[in-house]
Amino acid sequence: MIVIITGMPGSGKSKIVKEFERRGVPSVSLGDIVREETVKRGLELTKENVAKVSIRLRQELGQNAVAKLAVVRIRELLEGSNVVVVDGVRSLDEVGTFRSAFPGEEIVIIAVHTPPRQRFERLRKRGRHDDPKTWEEFEERDWKELKFGIGNVIAMADYMLVNDGSKEEYEKKVRETVELILASSRGRA
Amino acid sequence: MIVIITGMPGSGKSKIVKEFERRGVPSVSLGDIVREETVKRGLELTKENVAKVSIRLRQELGQNAVAKLAVVRIRELLEGSNVVVVDGVRSLDEVGTFRSAFPGEEIVIIAVHTPPRQRFERLRKRGRHDDPKTWEEFEERDWKELKFGIGNVIAMADYMLVNDGSKEEYEKKVRETVELILASSRGRA
Repeated sequence: MIVIITGMPGSGKSKIVKEFERRGVPSVSLGDIVREETVKRGLELTKENVAKVSIRLRQELGQNAVAKLAVVRIRELLEGSNVVVVDGVRSLDEVGTFRSAFPGEEIVIIAVHTPPRQRFERLRKRGRHDDPKTWEEFEERDWKELKFGIGNVIAMADYMLVNDGSKEEYEKKVRETVELILASSRGRA
Repeated sequence: MIVIITGMPGSGKSKIVKEFERRGVPSVSLGDIVREETVKRGLELTKENVAKVSIRLRQELGQNAVAKLAVVRIRELLEGSNVVVVDGVRSLDEVGTFRSAFPGEEIVIIAVHTPPRQRFERLRKRGRHDDPKTWEEFEERDWKELKFGIGNVIAMADYMLVNDGSKEEYEKKVRETVELILASSRGRA
């Protein structure tokens, strides 16, 4: 089974990934793949360089370049685990790449939703190198994600977690959803 | 205040509209606008005719033709009510049309999410003239909505209601959300 995690920046995707990891499920992050490629190519980890490498990868490997690189890792991980998590999927085309590469695997999409205002506050506090400092930067970054088609992946999710309340409430939802999915994967194995 | 309701076909949008109506809030349905235009033009209410009229409206009034027709009705309704519900918004461009037309109004987006499998079952049971009978028809109709950009509106929602459990649970969420929004609209009035 391949579990796809999607959601806008700052929505709370990493909490789901961590909960799967805590239960021994390995994961692949599409964002990390690009960041690693940036470092591999001897470039400093800036927003501009990461964007540049994204574009180059697509020139070299075609549309869905990052998903294609992910397929190699997923294949390796599926040898040791019957569930693999894929974090940061941004289009139904990428989902299609995984469906074609793994026709025998069940593919489950989990989306997290947090209202824009709350995401902005979280990202501002997180302050990762590519996190927005102003509302304009936030809208720009959101738009970049939406242009990829992330909204379509969210709209077609099998599980939708809403992260608009307390941290504890969200963590509970995450635990319950992860348990449910792992139970169903064992039921099928 | 303008409350925009969005969600994929069969997700449960109309329950929200009805709850607002029950509390005296008037609504405009973008889908009804096209269906009414179809009837006005002397055409039978078939899926093909409705699609044809959608295209003609865009030729006559430009992109966001339906949203532009809705603006006229919203303006009328805002004379008698400080909250108006707009049902069936399918793109952030349409949301932008409302923001430009009503710069003084707060705009709130409510999205409903139901997993695809459950939406399919509901639509099959509903059996409205344009509802899908097979999974292929369902995917085709979904794709039509996604191409409009409905996923982006869902991704940017201020409130996300998940409708994947019992009818009672969903109705409770709808009531609570509608109450919350109406209380905040009174707070601002």
